Amino acid sequence: MAVRAAVAGASGYAGGELLRLLLVHPEVEIGALTGNANAGQRLGALQPHLFPLADRVLEPTTPEVLAGHDVVFLALPHGQSAAVAEQLGPDVLVVDMGADFRLKDAADWEKFYGSPHAGTWPYGLPELPGGRAALEGAKRVAVPGCYPTAVSLALFPAYAADLVEPDAVIVAASGTSGAGKAAKPHLLGSEVMGSMSPYGVGGGHRHTPEMIQNLSAAAGTPVTVSFTPTLAPMPRGILATCSAKAKAGVTAETVRAAYEKAFADEPFVRLLPEGQWPATAAVYGSNAVQVQVAYDEAAGRVVVISAIDNLAKGTAGGAVQSMNIALGLPEDTGLSTIGVAP
Amino acid sequence: MAVRAAVAGASGYAGGELLRLLLVHPEVEIGALTGNANAGQRLGALQPHLFPLADRVLEPTTPEVLAGHDVVFLALPHGQSAAVAEQLGPDVLVVDMGADFRLKDAADWEKFYGSPHAGTWPYGLPELPGGRAALEGAKRVAVPGCYPTAVSLALFPAYAADLVEPDAVIVAASGTSGAGKAAKPHLLGSEVMGSMSPYGVGGGHRHTPEMIQNLSAAAGTPVTVSFTPTLAPMPRGILATCSAKAKAGVTAETVRAAYEKAFADEPFVRLLPEGQWPATAAVYGSNAVQVQVAYDEAAGRVVVISAIDNLAKGTAGGAVQSMNIALGLPEDTGLSTIGVAP
Amino acid sequence: MAVRAAVAGASGYAGGELLRLLLVHPEVEIGALTGNANAGQRLGALQPHLFPLADRVLEPTTPEVLAGHDVVFLALPHGQSAAVAEQLGPDVLVVDMGADFRLKDAADWEKFYGSPHAGTWPYGLPELPGGRAALEGAKRVAVPGCYPTAVSLALFPAYAADLVEPDAVIVAASGTSGAGKAAKPHLLGSEVMGSMSPYGVGGGHRHTPEMIQNLSAAAGTPVTVSFTPTLAPMPRGILATCSAKAKAGVTAETVRAAYEKAFADEPFVRLLPEGQWPATAAVYGSNAVQVQVAYDEAAGRVVVISAIDNLAKGTAGGAVQSMNIALGLPEDTGLSTIGVAP
Amino acid sequence: MAVRAAVAGASGYAGGELLRLLLVHPEVEIGALTGNANAGQRLGALQPHLFPLADRVLEPTTPEVLAGHDVVFLALPHGQSAAVAEQLGPDVLVVDMGADFRLKDAADWEKFYGSPHAGTWPYGLPELPGGRAALEGAKRVAVPGCYPTAVSLALFPAYAADLVEPDAVIVAASGTSGAGKAAKPHLLGSEVMGSMSPYGVGGGHRHTPEMIQNLSAAAGTPVTVSFTPTLAPMPRGILATCSAKAKAGVTAETVRAAYEKAFADEPFVRLLPEGQWPATAAVYGSNAVQVQVAYDEAAGRVVVISAIDNLAKGTAGGAVQSMNIALGLPEDTGLSTIGVAP
Repeated sequence: MAVRAAVAGASGYAGGELLRLLLVHPEVEIGALTGNANAGQRLGALQPHLFPLADRVLEPTTPEVLAGHDVVFLALPHGQSAAVAEQLGPDVLVVDMGADFRLKDAADWEKFYGSPHAGTWPYGLPELPGGRAALEGAKRVAVPGCYPTAVSLALFPAYAADLVEPDAVIVAASGTSGAGKAAKPHLLGSEVMGSMSPYGVGGGHRHTPEMIQNLSAAAGTPVTVSFTPTLAPMPRGILATCSAKAKAGVTAETVRAAYEKAFADEPFVRLLPEGQWPATAAVYGSNAVQVQVAYDEAAGRVVVISAIDNLAKGTAGGAVQSMNIALGLPEDTGLSTIGVAP
Repeated sequence: MAVRAAVAGASGYAGGELLRLLLVHPEVEIGALTGNANAGQRLGALQPHLFPLADRVLEPTTPEVLAGHDVVFLALPHGQSAAVAEQLGPDVLVVDMGADFRLKDAADWEKFYGSPHAGTWPYGLPELPGGRAALEGAKRVAVPGCYPTAVSLALFPAYAADLVEPDAVIVAASGTSGAGKAAKPHLLGSEVMGSMSPYGVGGGHRHTPEMIQNLSAAAGTPVTVSFTPTLAPMPRGILATCSAKAKAGVTAETVRAAYEKAFADEPFVRLLPEGQWPATAAVYGSNAVQVQVAYDEAAGRVVVISAIDNLAKGTAGGAVQSMNIALGLPEDTGLSTIGVAP
Repeated sequence: MAVRAAVAGASGYAGGELLRLLLVHPEVEIGALTGNANAGQRLGALQPHLFPLADRVLEPTTPEVLAGHDVVFLALPHGQSAAVAEQLGPDVLVVDMGADFRLKDAADWEKFYGSPHAGTWPYGLPELPGGRAALEGAKRVAVPGCYPTAVSLALFPAYAADLVEPDAVIVAASGTSGAGKAAKPHLLGSEVMGSMSPYGVGGGHRHTPEMIQNLSAAAGTPVTVSFTPTLAPMPRGILATCSAKAKAGVTAETVRAAYEKAFADEPFVRLLPEGQWPATAAVYGSNAVQVQVAYDEAAGRVVVISAIDNLAKGTAGGAVQSMNIALGLPEDTGLSTIGVAP
Repeated sequence: MAVRAAVAGASGYAGGELLRLLLVHPEVEIGALTGNANAGQRLGALQPHLFPLADRVLEPTTPEVLAGHDVVFLALPHGQSAAVAEQLGPDVLVVDMGADFRLKDAADWEKFYGSPHAGTWPYGLPELPGGRAALEGAKRVAVPGCYPTAVSLALFPAYAADLVEPDAVIVAASGTSGAGKAAKPHLLGSEVMGSMSPYGVGGGHRHTPEMIQNLSAAAGTPVTVSFTPTLAPMPRGILATCSAKAKAGVTAETVRAAYEKAFADEPFVRLLPEGQWPATAAVYGSNAVQVQVAYDEAAGRVVVISAIDNLAKGTAGGAVQSMNIALGLPEDTGLSTIGVAP
């Protein structure tokens, strides 16, 4: 009995990656594919890498088109998910890949997004403490942002084990697909190739409150985050370098032990052997997360590095993983930890 | 009943890509993995993207280690396959991803490789006329070179339909993985990023006689090839631009009809809709081949462009496809036409 | 006594590169800088690499603003140069970096550009036979297209020396800056990184008639050109692979001798030593042209490869070189053959 | 009267960049060029972008070859400079682009480099407090490391103005040329393109004590540094993201004022206008440093970002700048703040 899935926003990068994953998901049958500006176009022209769907034509994003599915994935611009979700009925699983339902604090939402808060849905990061329980049987799922996925997985064990002080410093490099498919001059190949540049410096990035929410929950106390995202000359991948001051008594051994314990049973997160460091190339196209941790005694800080594929585990893979849990399927159904390299 | 497969040369790019494909092949069980310089090392250190095999340890390439498998893949430097193959017995399927057994003409081999010719095995390009028949039930398979795969698939329909003169001009761009994993100064990232450069100009590239062999067979008459390979600043992919003078009476319609017919039933080759052009990004990580053809009336030439992933369809995917045919499995078992993009 | 130069279209890639060169030109004083959509903006925001001009503000492209200069460079979209040039008076040197005045044949212009032909100006490729004489004292200069620069320099010696047949086959790879700074989805970094793709296949590229014009002049007989441009994942550079069938009696020695003679006294074109091949990285940011030639006896073709920087020698450097000649300055004033590598 | 300069180690990236700069330096005449493994080779084969030096042949690095120059630049592997310098006599200006003479603390040297300390030379970062005075008339100069250049310039104003706490957190991304030209597997284009990865995490990078030395001097108190370098998929450039906890009473205004004051008269360092962020592309090939600073009130940290070209200002440009000061030439002679972009 196949799960019938619709994808609203199938022409963008998140939608395309989701379709790539759903095509190999053994329990899913791909239903309606919608777009707005691109409705009426062949998917082969928009997503030429999705050979088996080349002759599918995008439909408009309407309740009629999205009706009759077991799962509807929303890969829409921020602020548009609530209106669509309302029309879908309470029995349909709605997985929102946008930001609309991630934050618990309405004031945070309004400060960072400048619009009324739509609400809060179960949060699709099962590896967090209590994360899986929140998703089991859920009918609504808010897929985390790509940076919060990389950062929260890197740092929550340190906070959960009370190893570090509650002020984290994070610098992350992202591939350009994280900025989407809309044509903007600063995202031209001519501009990004050969260049590293920061943006949203000083606390302005919209993913900051989401990280704070996750890390504060793990710590049981408010955590502050200094977050600097940078744009890297590569299409995919996030490398997050995260650190916080070590609490008294912390040693390299206690740090490593905490991380080994945190990820011991995780199907997608791998704490690398000592001496090996994450690389985004190693998780290209996969749902895997590479993590490594170091205790810098001279600086008195715990440094954690994580690498994910921003479109896979960071968006579409995380969405499928949460869908699996919500539907009661084995969590790793249709998902892979095998990257494409070199 | 699983097919048990060994891979000799599992630490290189071809071996790594093969393992990536075998890991998702439903009929294959991965057996021995061997290396020479790298024997004794964890695969996780050498191929960190192959998460599920991270704890496997490379063994030396010996007959004892390779014994007891149904299929042995050889991803060895040129000239080493014959000695290993001899020790494997006639009932084992041996799939050679090196060049040793591709050429029929011993003089060609000796001229281009400078060593005695080891012999000729069934040629693993099923899309060529008669290609599948040659592979059915075979116990030895010579996987084509990456450039000859891209070029032969682009041009054989024109030659088979007698549309063009027997002197072809080919310029192809390849990603750097085609040059292998051995550290050489001109392959450093610092050297290749931001640069296009040719090599083996003027007929010197070893893949030239292989192209001539394939195209001459399709044409039924000797074909000459002017082949210029270029190194492109990307890890994977081949874009081959191939042309030949049109014969009298050829029109855009006859050209298109010949290509539509040639690829109508091919599971992996897609003649794109008119107006859409191949891009290596669209076949990244997939076994698909994108082809487009144009008749340039002013220049009097038929121009055919093909795009493949040099490591997938161009090496390891082609190897698996041929293995499937040789073993009597459905040809597309475990192979995908879905690329990873962007 | 400084030459006072204005640049119309200073916000784009061609305009920016021109300013980079003019800043170090010992005889030039940079005057008005104009833009249209960007008028009123600081140059520091648009061309942040041009530190010394950061506080200059773009003015609108009007006759008043452009008045009072010795030289006016036009870096405008195709079709806009004639109207601006008319207003500048016959004594001002006008150097058009667009296509409007390159072609001699009005029918060619209309076929490829779809608008009335504006006329023909002296052609700014001094290395062509008679090229310098046409530029001395000129008051109007049409700067060649980037592809025609690379291709004409590669092939004219073979045609001038009657070494090859009059049907040339050209495949060229260009960096993305050749496509300009206007934001289009297929030029996004996410799309171009890791990808090679062709465009304008089958004779459709607008630079084709310009190549034909140059090569036919060199040959003294009509030449046909099969031209396939490809987009390469790098910001700058053109690598042109050009070939034609050798005439009877041609040998490797006659070919090399012709090229040595053609470029013996050229300040910017370097025929590489035998065995060394051009690379776009070696001419990054420089006005140099690297050329290498091979005679492929088996295929019966002469193969010539050239590498240029599409923005430097291919556009802005060529413009400065022509300005120097037109003004009676030493041809290499302010121009460099030193690239930035790696 | 020209300054006659020799370059020991002319075949590597630092040596090549130095030659690129010396070629346009109006007071320098390029003398002997030496190499070890590459002695006897044409420079055109090793540094093909240096057109005017193509026919120069590398000589062995001996006292005889290096004799008779006013300045000798050493671009040698770490640990080799002292022996060469000793043979050059006290009146020759020796500019060491290696690490040997950067550190003041012998114990630091021995801990990070594992060999006896060679000594301490005047430090070639004139923008630091007291930096110029230390270089005037010097006969020995230790050129800073590339990371310490980017980081020290970013953070010293905050420490000099007592704005931040003495524990800095730094994450920097470097292009691959920083790792040199020696062929190592992890530096292959196939490995680095499309990948971000850290190295030397947790305090192990050799540039750490050099940063601590500079920042502690600026602060007048010991500073600790948590430094994480990452390898970015680009040939050149460093983007350093540096932060420290703000002291009480600090505001956005006090921070900006401190930076404006620190860089007001600097010829090569530009504090960008508010709202504009550094990008490595903007300083490609130039000696300029882009800096921007933010005060993140929520996180309580001052965040400073700097971008340099690791080979230019980070190595060879810094060397030329220091040479100019040591020789009494205007500091910016032969140096440019104009980058090559896109």
